[in-house]
This record gives sequence, structure tokens and C-alpha cells, in this order.
Amino acid sequence: MATTSRREILGGLGAGMVLAGMATRAGAAPARKIGYAIVGLGSYATRQIMPNFAGCEHARLVALVSGTPAKLDQYGAQYGIAATHRYSYADFDRIRDNPDIDVVYVVLPNSMHAEYSIRAAQAGKHVMCEKPMAVSVAECEAMIAACRKAGTKLMIGYRSRFEPYNRLAIELARGGHVGPTRLITAEHGFPARPDQWRLDRPLSGGGSMMDIGIYSLNAARYLTGEEPVSVSAVETTDKADPRFKTVEDRISFLLRFPSGIVANCISSYSSSHNGYRVIGTQGWIDMEPATPYQGQSMSIRKDGVTTPRTLPPAAKNQFAGQLDHMAECIVNGTTPIVPGEEGLADMRVIEAIYRSAAERREVAIRA
Amino acid sequence: MATTSRREILGGLGAGMVLAGMATRAGAAPARKIGYAIVGLGSYATRQIMPNFAGCEHARLVALVSGTPAKLDQYGAQYGIAATHRYSYADFDRIRDNPDIDVVYVVLPNSMHAEYSIRAAQAGKHVMCEKPMAVSVAECEAMIAACRKAGTKLMIGYRSRFEPYNRLAIELARGGHVGPTRLITAEHGFPARPDQWRLDRPLSGGGSMMDIGIYSLNAARYLTGEEPVSVSAVETTDKADPRFKTVEDRISFLLRFPSGIVANCISSYSSSHNGYRVIGTQGWIDMEPATPYQGQSMSIRKDGVTTPRTLPPAAKNQFAGQLDHMAECIVNGTTPIVPGEEGLADMRVIEAIYRSAAERREVAIRA
Repeated sequence: MATTSRREILGGLGAGMVLAGMATRAGAAPARKIGYAIVGLGSYATRQIMPNFAGCEHARLVALVSGTPAKLDQYGAQYGIAATHRYSYADFDRIRDNPDIDVVYVVLPNSMHAEYSIRAAQAGKHVMCEKPMAVSVAECEAMIAACRKAGTKLMIGYRSRFEPYNRLAIELARGGHVGPTRLITAEHGFPARPDQWRLDRPLSGGGSMMDIGIYSLNAARYLTGEEPVSVSAVETTDKADPRFKTVEDRISFLLRFPSGIVANCISSYSSSHNGYRVIGTQGWIDMEPATPYQGQSMSIRKDGVTTPRTLPPAAKNQFAGQLDHMAECIVNGTTPIVPGEEGLADMRVIEAIYRSAAERREVAIRA
Repeated sequence: MATTSRREILGGLGAGMVLAGMATRAGAAPARKIGYAIVGLGSYATRQIMPNFAGCEHARLVALVSGTPAKLDQYGAQYGIAATHRYSYADFDRIRDNPDIDVVYVVLPNSMHAEYSIRAAQAGKHVMCEKPMAVSVAECEAMIAACRKAGTKLMIGYRSRFEPYNRLAIELARGGHVGPTRLITAEHGFPARPDQWRLDRPLSGGGSMMDIGIYSLNAARYLTGEEPVSVSAVETTDKADPRFKTVEDRISFLLRFPSGIVANCISSYSSSHNGYRVIGTQGWIDMEPATPYQGQSMSIRKDGVTTPRTLPPAAKNQFAGQLDHMAECIVNGTTPIVPGEEGLADMRVIEAIYRSAAERREVAIRA
């Protein structure tokens, strides 16, 4: 991924962008904003992502894809998206012919991520895909292969990597601010409301681990900068609870990292958790909440003293930061900091977690 | 344990106490304070336990046992212990002949707990023993049998059970104050300083798990009121660290309880931790620090609002409360709330934790 071909840089750019891009040097502002099509108009897309194009420097919303005509009308009108830029799923492959669309952002239920990401790549578009990247390692690998073949970029929606407190936590943890890290705790969960696609395995691919639990896993990986070598997991699901007929409720898992760090993680669909702590030999870095849409809170304990750590308001929030990052990668010919390989790495661990829980033993994670 | 024989009530009481005890009904104040002999004059005994007899209503310090004559002189003088009530280990069995000694409190290194507890029982004395109760299930069972045979009481030094915040946490957790408990996190650790008996397996019987880790385990058990059915554990020890030549550093372990609660626990000798959280379906009860000598801090999150919970100053601290509890049990013929069976239950889990860590699989815990 270190070298970048001209085809990769230009892949998926509309004709207007090619000309504009030619005049753009790395680091310079792009001549026009990169155009996004949003696929799937659920609450995360409509409430969190779409409003945040307004705060982007390099990205703009240019197209919508939905199976619900009323949503296309509503959000099309709200965001000024012309009828020519509104697509049904039957129409989806016609995005190929729309030069305004540079990136397809897949915000569908998990089991549809692979199909629509691959079709987007085949239509010559760069791909942003929500996490979890897909519902299996095999699907993740197919997505990476499809984007590589098409010469398009692939980025996974790990928004916390564009959030200042999380970035600071990474810097402090990896930099040994409280001594070398010895343990990490990472806990994410919420009480799942019934009757939604998240609880329907054919759509979700799994329960809390495929949803909120990935925040605990991904945090353990980004706070260490290491890949876990094995996992021990315990699942507990009340099968009498109608929410959990096809998916798991809670998974507790212990990740063993090469340096000797162990991460104690929680994923839950029946209790509220949002936090992590990095415990070093001299203290700890605590974030609670750690990964909300806004309102992160950090405190640091060092040499026996606990101090809150407050950052100035960010110029750009995590959603706009994420959208702009992909745009900049396209213009500058660089690789996203959270490429398909990042989603694949999480999925390898998730598969090992499920296997460990089922077999009740520690399971090695193949790299 | 529900019925109590007269012999059990009177076992180990000095002659004066027999007469006084005869006139004491359950609930009434005892006529004289129960006399303790402290065995082992290390820092926990001399700094935490001995000064707190001053705050006891029913217990008093009457004898000292140490292998160091200078300590016997120093503390004997400080606490007004006559030379006739100061013992070396060679002299230990002569406590049988001292009617002022009702209870022997064993505060020795772990591997000596069983021997001195059993010898105390054989001398007709009630036994208070520090945690961990011993270094194996077999030793715990032998201690229970010896006290049963001698008709003496056996109590383990789980001081947090006499600390108001922990008692409140138990009441709130078991009472469903934040909904039924779904998960518990319990974390205890401190950076072990080199060159002490804790790091010498023949004396300690193990590393952090045999020391600070038992607080995480015991908290998970007292907060649920249940016995874990299995455990998955991961150990990480840097064998290049001279502190850890014979004992483990860190163990992370997941306890599975019959009701479906899972406890994510940490035990560490290379990082600082002291806290637990009970997470229910409606919020959580957080204690940090949870089990220090003083300064517990509780907060409760319910319905999305986090509130500190402060208790008025306790009339009696946890050390005095513990000493008085055993005294009251002796006078009233009742069983301590933390009897030998409580120490045995922890030791069964600790043995399973070590086995799980070694075999890298979930291990069932026999009841």
C-alpha cells in the first residue's frame, strides 16, 4: 500500500475531478469537493453522517440510495439532491454513469456490506463502508480484492480515529505516558430495543459483538498498536429473552497481545457501557464515555494523582473528519488510516471470539 | 452450621469468660472483651490490625506471637502486653494454657496459615485467619476440619464485609437497584516491590492472585451472592522481571455465574487497580477505590444520570468491625459471616483460575 499508481489515484474520480485533480499537489486543497453517495438511509446515515457534510472541507453529499421512495424524496429535498442522483437498489449499478459520485458510503445492515461495497468498486467508485466491515473474514477479503482490482480506495467507518480524545489516548498510551501498558479494559454495550435488524442474524451476522462490541475490540487494537495473538471469550445469552432468538447478548473476552498486554473487553446488548482504560506501570488513562457521537471525557492518573484532561473544541467533528479524510486520500493518492485491512483485522478477531466462546477455550488468531 | 452446641459456644473461652458468658444472652453486650493473640508482626498486623483494637467494643489485644524478640519487646511495650503473654513460634503451643487468649489471629505468610490455624484450634482457641485462607483447597479443608473437631470458630479476614460502602454495594447489587446484574468488573493490583515474601512462592503460594487478586474474586462473589460455575483465565508474566521468578504477575479472569452474570476480573502485580462496577440492566454501581483501608468512593448511574453516593462516617472502621464480629460470634454462639467455608470457596476458584490459565481453556469449578 506504500506505493500508489496513477490509476489508483484517479480511479473512481469523475471526469471533472480528473482535471481538477491533475492540478492538485499533495497537501494542497482540492479544487472541488469529493462527491459521496450514501447507500442506506437509516438513522445512523440520516442523523449522524448526512448532517455532517456541512462541516466538511473536502467532501459533499451528491447522491442517495434507498429502497424507500419516501426517504429519497424527503432527504433528497432536504439536501438538494436532484432526482437524477437518487437511486433505488435496483438502479444501484447506474452510479457508474454518474461522474459526480466519487465515493459510495455503505451504511446498510452488516450482511449487505460486502455486496454493495463490491458492486460500488465494480462501478469504479471508491468505497467507504460502515463497521463491522462485513460478516465474515471471507467477505472482507473479497471486498479488499474487489477494490484492489478496480483500483479504488476502501475505507472502514472507524469514526473514533478522527475524534481528538481518542487520538490523544492513542498517543499517550503508545507513548508510555503512564509507563508501558500492562492491561486495558474496554467496555461497550447498550440495551437493545426489540424488533430491529440488529437482532436478526441474516441481516446483522451476529449480536452485540457485531455491533457495539467492535468498539471495545478496535479500541484495544488502536490503543496498543498491536494485533492480538489469541482470545478467550465467554458468551452469556438468555435465550428466553425474545430479543436474543438468533443473536448473542453479552460476550466478555480477553485479548492477549504480543508485548504481554492483555485487554479485558465487554460487549453487551443488555446493559450500558461506554469506556476504556489503559493501565500502565505508573497509572492509567481513562475515557468514559470513550466513543459516543460527542461528549468524550478523559482523566489521567499518574503518580497517585487523578486529573481530568480537557481538549479545546475541535474545529471539525469526528464525522466530518472521517468524510474529509477519505476525500483527502483520494485527492492526494494516499491510503486511508483505516483501510479495508483494518476491518479485516477486526473480523479475524471476531471470528476467533465466536469460536472461543463456542469451544470454551483460548483460540489463536491467525495473522 | 445453623445449630450451635454449648461446647461450640464455650470452646476456647477462658475460665473467666465461661462465667461471664453464662450470663450473656444473644444480643446483650458481653461482660468482658474477647482476647486476641496476634501471630505474625508484619506491617499489616502492626499498622492496620493492632491499632484498631482501640476502636473495638468487644475485642482486645492480649498476646503477641513473633519470631523476632525485638518486635515482641517493641509492640509488647507499646500495647502493654505482659512478658507472660509474648510468645515465640517455639512457644506457640503454650497459648493453650493462657485463659486470656480466646482467639488466635493468624497474619503470617500464606503458606503458614494452615499450620498455625490448626495448631491454634488444637490448643482450644478460636481462629481468625488472614486471606487467602491457605495455599490450597486441601489445606482449607484441613483447617475447617480441625476447628470443627476442636469446637472452635474459624473466620477469614475479609475486612470489606465490615466496610459500609461495600455492605451498601452488596445490598444495592443483590436488591436490583440498577436492575438485575448482567456484568461485573472487578480490578485489583499494585506494583509489587522486589524482595518480599509475597514474591517467594514457598511462602506466598502464588503471585498477585494469591494476594491482591483475591479482592476481585471475593467482590464478584459477594456482589452476586452466587458461586461461579466456571472460569476462563489468561496469565501474563514477564519472566525476565526479577520480581516474577517464582510467582505470576497478572491474571485476567472471567467468572461465569449460575444466573448468567459474568465477572471480568483483573489481578496485577505490575499496575495499580482498585475498583469494581456492578452493571445492571438500568445502570451501574461503581466503587473506586473499592477496598482500600479507608477512602472508599461510590457512584451510581441510573436512568442516564450519574450521582456520587456518600455515607456518613462509620462509628467503627472495617478493622474494628471485623475484630468485634468474631468476638460477638463467640459470645452469642453464632457463625461468622465469613467462615472458613468462605475462604475455601475462594480457594476452589483460585485453583480453577490457575488451571484455566495453564491449560488455556474454560475450567469448571466444583462446588
